[in-house]
Amino acid sequence: MTFLSFCFLKNDSVSVQVEQADAGLPPTERSSSLPVFSHDEVTKHRSLEDGVWVTYKGGVYDVTEFVPMHPGGNKILLAAGGALEPFWALYAVHDQEYVLEILSKYKVGELSAEDLKKQGEAKESDPYSSDPERHPVLRINSKKPFNAEPPPEILTESYITPHVLFFKRNHLPVPQVDPASYRLQVEGLPRGALTLSLKDLKTRFPKHTVTATLQCAGNRRSDMNQVKEVKGLNWGISAIGNAKWSGARLRDVLLAAGFGPDVAKWARHVHFEGLDKDVTGSAYGTSIPINKAMNEDGDVLLAYEMNGEDIPADHGFPVRVVVPGVVGARNVKWLGRIVVSAEESSSHWQQHDYKVFSPGTDWSKVDHTSSPAIQELPVQSAITVPADGAQIDHSDETLTVKGYAWSGGGREVVRVDVSLDGGKTWQVAQLRSGDKGQPDEPSPPPGRSWAWKLWELTAPLPPDADELEIICKAVDNGYNVQPDTIPPIWNLRGLLNNAWHRVKVKVT
Amino acid sequence: MTFLSFCFLKNDSVSVQVEQADAGLPPTERSSSLPVFSHDEVTKHRSLEDGVWVTYKGGVYDVTEFVPMHPGGNKILLAAGGALEPFWALYAVHDQEYVLEILSKYKVGELSAEDLKKQGEAKESDPYSSDPERHPVLRINSKKPFNAEPPPEILTESYITPHVLFFKRNHLPVPQVDPASYRLQVEGLPRGALTLSLKDLKTRFPKHTVTATLQCAGNRRSDMNQVKEVKGLNWGISAIGNAKWSGARLRDVLLAAGFGPDVAKWARHVHFEGLDKDVTGSAYGTSIPINKAMNEDGDVLLAYEMNGEDIPADHGFPVRVVVPGVVGARNVKWLGRIVVSAEESSSHWQQHDYKVFSPGTDWSKVDHTSSPAIQELPVQSAITVPADGAQIDHSDETLTVKGYAWSGGGREVVRVDVSLDGGKTWQVAQLRSGDKGQPDEPSPPPGRSWAWKLWELTAPLPPDADELEIICKAVDNGYNVQPDTIPPIWNLRGLLNNAWHRVKVKVT
Repeated sequence: MTFLSFCFLKNDSVSVQVEQADAGLPPTERSSSLPVFSHDEVTKHRSLEDGVWVTYKGGVYDVTEFVPMHPGGNKILLAAGGALEPFWALYAVHDQEYVLEILSKYKVGELSAEDLKKQGEAKESDPYSSDPERHPVLRINSKKPFNAEPPPEILTESYITPHVLFFKRNHLPVPQVDPASYRLQVEGLPRGALTLSLKDLKTRFPKHTVTATLQCAGNRRSDMNQVKEVKGLNWGISAIGNAKWSGARLRDVLLAAGFGPDVAKWARHVHFEGLDKDVTGSAYGTSIPINKAMNEDGDVLLAYEMNGEDIPADHGFPVRVVVPGVVGARNVKWLGRIVVSAEESSSHWQQHDYKVFSPGTDWSKVDHTSSPAIQELPVQSAITVPADGAQIDHSDETLTVKGYAWSGGGREVVRVDVSLDGGKTWQVAQLRSGDKGQPDEPSPPPGRSWAWKLWELTAPLPPDADELEIICKAVDNGYNVQPDTIPPIWNLRGLLNNAWHRVKVKVT
Repeated sequence: MTFLSFCFLKNDSVSVQVEQADAGLPPTERSSSLPVFSHDEVTKHRSLEDGVWVTYKGGVYDVTEFVPMHPGGNKILLAAGGALEPFWALYAVHDQEYVLEILSKYKVGELSAEDLKKQGEAKESDPYSSDPERHPVLRINSKKPFNAEPPPEILTESYITPHVLFFKRNHLPVPQVDPASYRLQVEGLPRGALTLSLKDLKTRFPKHTVTATLQCAGNRRSDMNQVKEVKGLNWGISAIGNAKWSGARLRDVLLAAGFGPDVAKWARHVHFEGLDKDVTGSAYGTSIPINKAMNEDGDVLLAYEMNGEDIPADHGFPVRVVVPGVVGARNVKWLGRIVVSAEESSSHWQQHDYKVFSPGTDWSKVDHTSSPAIQELPVQSAITVPADGAQIDHSDETLTVKGYAWSGGGREVVRVDVSLDGGKTWQVAQLRSGDKGQPDEPSPPPGRSWAWKLWELTAPLPPDADELEIICKAVDNGYNVQPDTIPPIWNLRGLLNNAWHRVKVKVT
């Protein structure tokens, strides 16, 4: 296990279940012959010059030498001179045995019994304790921060995904926001900042409703991980959902804030900051290109409703950005701040995450400036029914295959091909833009197809087959197609797996 | 050979060299015992009711039974009661022996010697006789209409393709247009038609210049044809080129013609008609969605210059449409008419050609309404150097691979991966947007990357290899990728082959 293994404290590379048993250092080490230090002594060591000391469960550690190797970079200095516990509570990836092993190497002493007692009395608060309740049907990829997806076979039962079943992808604890005191700051425009209350957003701007599919860049990562290990949450095929979002158009808000021809000359990006903050007080942040924000056909919303109700806490209450056709990561939840800028966001999530590299690029040679931040997503589809490994009754005359298909950038999925024989022959699935038996939603204009299509194929069960390899692949109206296999699109973060989806079923 | 083999008289499916030796019916048949008919008698047979008779080189043919089987449909009736020669001169695909064999079955008599003489005296005109001279370096796929492409290794020698080397893709003879009397009709708007001279176009509207790559939907068809036979011109990898186009913006012209909010409520498409007409007088025509036409970022031009000079005859003199990011077929040359409409063009090329179907769809079950007309094109790349089958010197230490990469819809190519080992490992190529050694063109805003990138990789020659399979694949900024193989994207017209491009070279 190398230090790179926990390289992503702030992002979605938490590839393990982070809630584990309360692992501590072996009690025997408590009675070591190491010197005893007071809390005051520890606090003097807060820089590389003075040494970087931290405490953990009564031990004192000089981690100065570890600082340059800390995958989270200089953020480790925030804990210098004090206890690690509150930071590790936020970045739960640290709660693993090998992390404690690394730490143990740097032990230099014991905290005085008196100061240890004081630390114990300081109320240990779990920053995730206010997170909302979630439905137990969700498959959890990480508890803290909470990341979970619905079972695939449920996902495609409804064209509009109920919020309870909509995948949750949180980078930090869910912030508690009082809607009455909520204020959105709009900055970077010549007139000065504009401050909007939730009521302002609802009353000063026309309400627009857009049906849009959101997908996490890590959707289907688990299959890519099987080709060769990647770093990231081990998402299945359900880190995607389709909802009706309602709110003010970002375009309208920016125009009200003073966006005009003069601003258009220099403005290139719009930054979004969430109210979800890490222990250093820095918020989740990212940006989108200005033309997506200002284009009348871009349909970017500052949404305050999801499926006709207040946006639930896990999805950004009271206001989130919805950037249709664009990777989930730009659809900032718990929106606190908007900044119009000539530059792209300098945030970690814009510059050092959510980028894709060549399959030949490994961590030793990755150059994050060589690849653009993901915005529009490529064409995607997956099979939700039957499940991989399912058993099909040999006496069935027909087999029904179901799934979803979607493409980024407002490109409409125009065809889904399904193979029951591992790709030798293909049949065209039925597409729909509504619930089964219900009329389809009206077709949006070209370039504004933000919602997925559900698809279904019922075909004769191939005779005499013991096993079927079922494959789906979608085509969008830019006639982009999915690649045949995963290895050529493999990338170290396991992002944007849109290779053909394959499931194998037994015929018994 | 079935009747379907010459199903596409009007489009680009002419998969054979159409200029052949002057094949005629065997002279022995002239002295048959069949009855002799006068021209007047023949002219009475111009309908299914009266029979459909035609003459060809002195023979009289009753083709009534053949009419329902004619792949070109009812257009055969235009020749009814008269000579086939002028029609076959236009649709040179008929000049093949098997067509004459089919015709011979329907022979019912001889044309009277007197009338045959009159026919001979009627000046036989070749509708292609006014076509411009072309450079002999071009590889000809069809002479009449003229379709040709440059050798790949020349194509990527310059970032801007000289017009002489730019692929020619004509559906019909090149029309002779007098620039002084040229008039463009703009119709469909409430104010009535607007008529613009070439001078009007040049003086009444700002001149915009856009560097845009045009690609034929049939580019790389020959490789798809090798997987399984398709119908269409047998294009190699050079039915693509990059030029600087200058002209008036379509948007500006439509606004001047009265396009406004009221029109926006119902207008959905913009039709273009060329001045190139078939023998029935119907022009080449097609349409694009209104939002592409009116979007300020759409950059659709009514171009009168190519690479800083008047547009050459083969490329649409005096005015052609340039629809950046969209399939070549919509970039109508010799533009005569623009119509704003609620409906898509009903033309053959919009409704019954330039559509892609599932690999499982054959001619017996194709439903053209099931697939949208191609507009934006998918991500593409190809290797221009070395050529397939080239010999590499074993003592060379390095190998240089070159090519082009481009994507439709204004999506920028952000990476090209090259493999020298059949796809096992990949290296990232250097991209450029200008000539080698020259500064790159400035990056366009997101969504407006209309021009290709040239790429190059110089890598150590793998040791001990007798043969290399070199592959390239591109990624655009929507992170769309090329599919691994051709069979899953095979389609009966051989369109949009954007699978990885592969060349094999020998190391000797």
